Order: sequence, then C-alpha cells, then structure tokens
Amino acid sequence: MYYSKHQFDDTIVALATPAGIGAIAVIRLSGKDALRIADLFFYGKKLSRQKSHTAHFGTIRHENQHVIDEVLATVFVAPRSYTRENTVEISTHGSPYIVQQVIQLAIRHGARMAQPGEFTLRAFLNGQLDLSQAEAVADLIASNSESAHQLAIQQMRGGFSLQIKQLREELVHFASLMELELDFGEEDVEFANRDDLKLLVLKIQKIIRHLSDSFALGNVLKNGVLTVIAGRPNAGKSTLLNALLNEERAIVSEIAGTTRDTIEEILNINGIAFRLVDTAGIRQATDAIEAIGVQKTMEKVRQSAVLLYVFDMLETTMEEVKTDLEALRQDDMKILVICNKQDTNELFQIEVLSKRIQVDKIIALSAKYGTHLKDLKSTLYDLVSAGQVKSDSTIVSNARHYEALQKSDECLSAVLNSMATGITTDFVAMDIRRALYHLGSITGTVTTDDLLENIFRNFCIGK
Amino acid sequence: MYYSKHQFDDTIVALATPAGIGAIAVIRLSGKDALRIADLFFYGKKLSRQKSHTAHFGTIRHENQHVIDEVLATVFVAPRSYTRENTVEISTHGSPYIVQQVIQLAIRHGARMAQPGEFTLRAFLNGQLDLSQAEAVADLIASNSESAHQLAIQQMRGGFSLQIKQLREELVHFASLMELELDFGEEDVEFANRDDLKLLVLKIQKIIRHLSDSFALGNVLKNGVLTVIAGRPNAGKSTLLNALLNEERAIVSEIAGTTRDTIEEILNINGIAFRLVDTAGIRQATDAIEAIGVQKTMEKVRQSAVLLYVFDMLETTMEEVKTDLEALRQDDMKILVICNKQDTNELFQIEVLSKRIQVDKIIALSAKYGTHLKDLKSTLYDLVSAGQVKSDSTIVSNARHYEALQKSDECLSAVLNSMATGITTDFVAMDIRRALYHLGSITGTVTTDDLLENIFRNFCIGK
Repeated sequence: MYYSKHQFDDTIVALATPAGIGAIAVIRLSGKDALRIADLFFYGKKLSRQKSHTAHFGTIRHENQHVIDEVLATVFVAPRSYTRENTVEISTHGSPYIVQQVIQLAIRHGARMAQPGEFTLRAFLNGQLDLSQAEAVADLIASNSESAHQLAIQQMRGGFSLQIKQLREELVHFASLMELELDFGEEDVEFANRDDLKLLVLKIQKIIRHLSDSFALGNVLKNGVLTVIAGRPNAGKSTLLNALLNEERAIVSEIAGTTRDTIEEILNINGIAFRLVDTAGIRQATDAIEAIGVQKTMEKVRQSAVLLYVFDMLETTMEEVKTDLEALRQDDMKILVICNKQDTNELFQIEVLSKRIQVDKIIALSAKYGTHLKDLKSTLYDLVSAGQVKSDSTIVSNARHYEALQKSDECLSAVLNSMATGITTDFVAMDIRRALYHLGSITGTVTTDDLLENIFRNFCIGK
Repeated sequence: MYYSKHQFDDTIVALATPAGIGAIAVIRLSGKDALRIADLFFYGKKLSRQKSHTAHFGTIRHENQHVIDEVLATVFVAPRSYTRENTVEISTHGSPYIVQQVIQLAIRHGARMAQPGEFTLRAFLNGQLDLSQAEAVADLIASNSESAHQLAIQQMRGGFSLQIKQLREELVHFASLMELELDFGEEDVEFANRDDLKLLVLKIQKIIRHLSDSFALGNVLKNGVLTVIAGRPNAGKSTLLNALLNEERAIVSEIAGTTRDTIEEILNINGIAFRLVDTAGIRQATDAIEAIGVQKTMEKVRQSAVLLYVFDMLETTMEEVKTDLEALRQDDMKILVICNKQDTNELFQIEVLSKRIQVDKIIALSAKYGTHLKDLKSTLYDLVSAGQVKSDSTIVSNARHYEALQKSDECLSAVLNSMATGITTDFVAMDIRRALYHLGSITGTVTTDDLLENIFRNFCIGK
C-alpha cells in the first residue's frame, strides 16, 4: 500500500550521512516540490531557478529568522538525480542539533520524513535502476571486504540485470508466439517452432544453473565464511588466532566502527572475509554440567562452513584427534587440521596422519613462531574460492535471486516435460509465463507491494 | 611547527561526515593539487577543467581499474571554497570499506591524511575566517541546545570578531601616534592627545568588562547548567526528575546519539541545557563507611551552579532541612528548595519556611501529579538567565576569549595608571601594545604555534 506509486507526489527529507558528530552532515530532500520547499528556508540564491548539479552557499533560517546554519545546497533538477525527482542536498555543519532543526524545518514547510530506503525505492519506481541494482546498493553500503564490495559493485552497475533481461527477452518472444497460437483457438497452427523452443529452454537452463551454482560462492563472498576454530586446551588456538589476525587487525581498525557489530573476529584473505569463531567449550562434550555450553558451541559448529581443528602433535594421540573430528564433522563442512607447535612441515608425520583421518587438508605449523601461516591462509582461500573468484563471470550473492532462479529453472523443466509428453499449448505457455515471472522478479519487471516492502524496509533511512 | 604556513603546499584528504554506515559519505580533498589528484582516480569529466561549485557524476577506480564506487564529485575552485584552496568533495555510498579505499587511493596519488581541524586551520590561515570564528565552528558542531547553538552561530558569523576588531583599530591609532612621539626622541612633542586617549581607554574598558561579565552566562549557555538534585530518600527526587524529563525526552531522542556521551540527564528549558545530576548519597554524609561515596557526591555539588533540594514536607522537619542545606550550600550557588508532595502551592507553609532558611526560591509542588512543574522550570530559567538571554548583545562563551579580555583590561588599567602617575611615553605605549596583543589573540591577528595547536587539536579530523 505504502509503496504504491501514487503516493509519491510528496517530498521526502532525511539525513543521508551517518548519525553523530562530524565535520559535515548532508540532508537530502527529494520530490517534485523539493526545490520550492528548500527555497522557503534557504536564504541565498533561489534554488528553484538554478541549474542542475550546481552548489550554492547560503543560510538556513528558522521562521523567526534566526540563522540555524551556514550551508551549501546542491541542486539536482529532475530527472538528473538519484531519484529522478527534483533533489536538494543540504550540506550543514555536522551537529545533530542542526540536523534535527533543519529536518524539522523542512517538515514544517511541507516535506515528510522519508521511510527506510525510500530514496532508492523512488529511484527504482522512476526507472533509475532495477530491483537487483537497488538491492546491490544496500549490499554495497554493508560490504566490508573486497569480494563483497566487488560483487555489490558489479550488481549495482547492472551486469547481472542485463543477463537476466536478455534471457527473458528471448523467452518472451516464444511466449508471445504461443499465445498467438492460442488466439487462433481450434485451428492447428504453430508459430513457435517447438525444436527451437526446446533448444532455447535448454540454453537458458544451462545459464540459469550456472548462475545458481555460483550462489554458494556468492553467499560466501558476501557474508563471509563462518570458520570455527576447535581444539583441546593448550593446543595453541589463541596463539593461532592472534597470529592470523595480527597484520590484518591494523588494516581493519584504520577506520573505526567497521567491525563493531560483529561478534566474531574477521580475517580477510585476498578479499574474502573469514568469520573466525573461537570455541573454547568443544573438548568437554562429555561433561554433563557443561552440556548447555557445549550445545551452543555445537550449534555454531553446525552453521560453520569450515572447521579449523588445532592440536599439539606431542600431546595428543591420533585416536584423540579422530574422536574429536568425529564429534565435530558436519555434512558439507571443509575440514582443515593444524598440527601446531611444529617448526617445520614434517612431511612424514603428516603422511601418517593423512592415512588415518579423512579431511580436506593437513598443515603443520608453529603458531608461536608464525611459520607456515601463509600456507594456512592460501589453503583456506583455495578451499572456499576453488579458483572461481578472479573470473569475471556473474556471481549470484542474493538469496532472493537464487530462489527466483531455482523457481524459473523448475518452470522451464516443466516446459520441457510438457512438450515431451505432448501436453496442450496453453499449459506450456503458462509454464513459460511462470518462468518469465520468476526471472522478472529478480530485476523487478514484475513486483508486488510485499516484495518491495521486504526489500526496502531493511535499508537505512536516508538511502 | 606543524602549523607553519609553508607546510600547506600539500593536499589533504579526510572523511568529512561521521564514521559509520549511512546512505552517503563525503570525502574532502583540499590543496592546490586537489583537482589534479582527484582526476587521477575519478573517471568522468576532467574535474580540473570544471567550473567552481559544480557537481559531476563518475566512478572512482582502483589502479587495477576496478570500480570502487559510483560517486558525485563537487568541485570548488580556489579561493571559492571553505579552505580557500582548490577543493573536491566526493560523495560516495556510505560504506566504511569504500571510504577507506577512496582515502587510501587519494593518499597513494599524492594527498596526505588531514590532521584534526586542518581544513578549518587552513581556512583561518588563508583568511577565510578569524580565530574566534574558527573556534565557533567547533562549538557549533558540538552544540546540543538552542542557546549553545545560537551563541556559536553568532560567533561564527563574526559579530564578536567585528566588535573586537573595532576596539583594536581605535587603540592602534593611538599606539601609532605614541610610537611616532618616541621616534622624535628628545623633542617634547605630543601627537596623541592624552585626554582623548584616557576617554578611549575608559570606553574600551567599559565594553571589555561588559563582554567579560557576559562570560558567566555564556559559559552556562554553552556548557549547560550543572544542577544537582539532593534530598532524603523518598523525598520524591526520582519522580521529580522523571516528571521534568518526561516531555523533553521525546524531543531529545528524536535523533539518536545526541546525548549518548553525557552521564547526566539533560533538561532543556527554553533552549538552556540543565545538566541534572542525581545524588543519592548526600543524606548519609554522617556515615563514616560511605565517606568516599559522599566525597564524590560533594565534589559534584561543589561544581554545581544550582542546587535543587527536594523534601517531603510531612516527613521532614525544618531543622533537618536547615542541616541538609548547610551541608550542601556553596559559594555562588543558586539554591532552589522544593516542598514536594503538595497538591497546592501552600503559601502559608512556604512563608514560614522562607523565614527560617536563606535560599533563592521555595516552590511547593507535586512531582507525582505534575502540579507546578512549570513554576519550577521558569524559576530555574530565570535564576540562570536573569533575563539576559533574549537580548541581541554579544555573549562571550569561550574561556580563552574571557581570559584574553581580562588580560587586556589589566593592560588598559596599567595604561591609565601610568598616565596618571606621569610615567614616560614608552611605558604607556608598551602597555597599549600589550592590550592590543591580547585583543588580537582573540581573533588571531596575533597567534603562536602553541595557541593554534591547542585550538585545532580538539577538532575532529575532516573539519
């Protein structure tokens, strides 16, 4: 309801920069009356008479003529703005008090507070970007690793959209021909060549499945790889964690607040974020009193994509290692075994071990002296990326897109099935329409209010 | 050293908006090469060829040509910028990762990270604003009440500076004449009329003292009024605090983060911030064990400008009230006594009380039922502002300015004294020069590196 187009005749206002104290803050006004409203409290040149993309110095004044701030107002004339509406960006001094005053002033003069994501929603509804691009804007803002950032940028710049659009167009052509056949009713005409259609469906399915397959990686690149570190006490887990994080920390902490909200430690390897979770409780799985703690730990283990099992080769027997791994092992989990407190990569011992246990890789290293840490990092990277990261092919990272791709694949299989079993044209046409619907939902060619609300309510206000 | 002018040949870069996630972030580049440097990684129009105050869409690219973000770059050509240097403001998506990437890119291309307040420092050194205006910028950003904000705005807009400048100019005239007399050495000439000088000094002193006097109020308006709430248990302190804060809270919390850093509760009355401190420990001042707690409480009491003493008239004797007030009373403290749990303003009882104790005002009210809260608020406001707030006269709110005014006042008294006792012209001239020095230090006509460092190191980076 609230997302219906007709409601967008009004002008919205919001703080576009993060809340808090800074040198400057930017307040954004968008809507057909944005310039007119801004002129009611901006004293300087008349903004509604300025050219698009020009910045103007002036003062913001309260109705009682008190100066609230000296500001810079930048004018964007529709459709040359983010929302394709008239837009003013007011750059004030970065005081929460001033921001509050200016927003209240704008509201008193006819603007209303923007809903979360409403600027981007308007950009979408006005054709500035499609739905998958709009989603990429949110991903872009949230991205905190090179790979997540690259995925979001590519998606925002429309590569994925274009691919989906092309697939859809080819199908649309056939759908139209088949519906034309239906119009002829009883007559036995066939405008759409069934062999061509079959070839096209197979081709599209191949592309769709390729995209679907990329989601496993895309999800990892976007959300990071949950990596659980387990091992008995004194195996050297903490030393390893610190050794791994050591150089990385300096880079991450250059800008305050980037990792504040995550509980895990983030290790960045070649742009992929590994979310390292320390699990002190794993060993005591036999102790009844600590059952709850262990249960929580095991929950984390079950969610993890990678297990880093650390042990001290001198203190731990092969049997103990086997027992631990059996308790920890999950389906689809990559398992890396670290023989710690080794100054050299002792090939013989590793060989013995590798015959006894079934894991993805065994590495001997010394966490304390930092030897072979590079091996560990590159192994982690290879395990997850499988060499796919550097390719320029499209990677799907959005669960909604993945689901839509899966559904359209199903519909296309139904099309093939129907054709093979000789089911009537109307059913085939319907399956094609359904496939088109799901593909279209990715880019927002077809949408529902619910869908839009689900997507945009997770945006911040001001975006 | 670091503030010497000759170091400002380079180009500085910093995030200008608050750190954290938001819709957009603004990164500022300033310096003679700002446009040239931005052109090395901004892909779109050549920024160095654009007109001042124009905004341009483009991409920021890594050296490996990967797109870091789609941005809007606004060009300010010297001297038409905040710093009076060439400036580019790059408006990126509000991701800390992107901000970090763009700043690092700028640094790799020849910019350097800005020091705290360096943009404003450059603005000062390039004559865009004087020192008291620069200080007002910091005050403006930090202001969180209407009165603090108004003070900062007035000061930033230069009213105070102008006043100081005029006083200085009149004195400079006399100083020059007297130094001319000194040049004539032995000859008995008098270019500077001593009667006129005396009149001028008296006039300037009058203005300076008026300004100095305003500091008490200015300090209160800027920093808020530390108001301690004391009373015996069950006197109704918490109920009063909540009743007072009730409506105000809603306004304060409209923008998150405004009061996050203060431990006290802020009560805003007509734009003056009262910093209310609850002091549970005061009553137990006789108990030896809690001595440390009481000591801390008393420290807070000693710093407070206003005491709100709350008591329950039915439970507390006059003697107890007297004892409490004697323990709490400080020099220069305004004392307000609240007879709580009264549904009506019982004039008779107040009259009795007012004969026994010496305080600024006694108010009977019911915190629970909210009666006479308005009386309390307007009394608080009147006690502090003494009706001076609404006047348009200049109010000094900066301790450094206050000190400089005091010192120049002293020097001017020395001038008068020297003239009265017939001390030689060179001494009088020296005292005038000293007075000029102190007046000049307010606006930064004369400065030292230490002074600048003291002022600007408290700015945020990016301002």
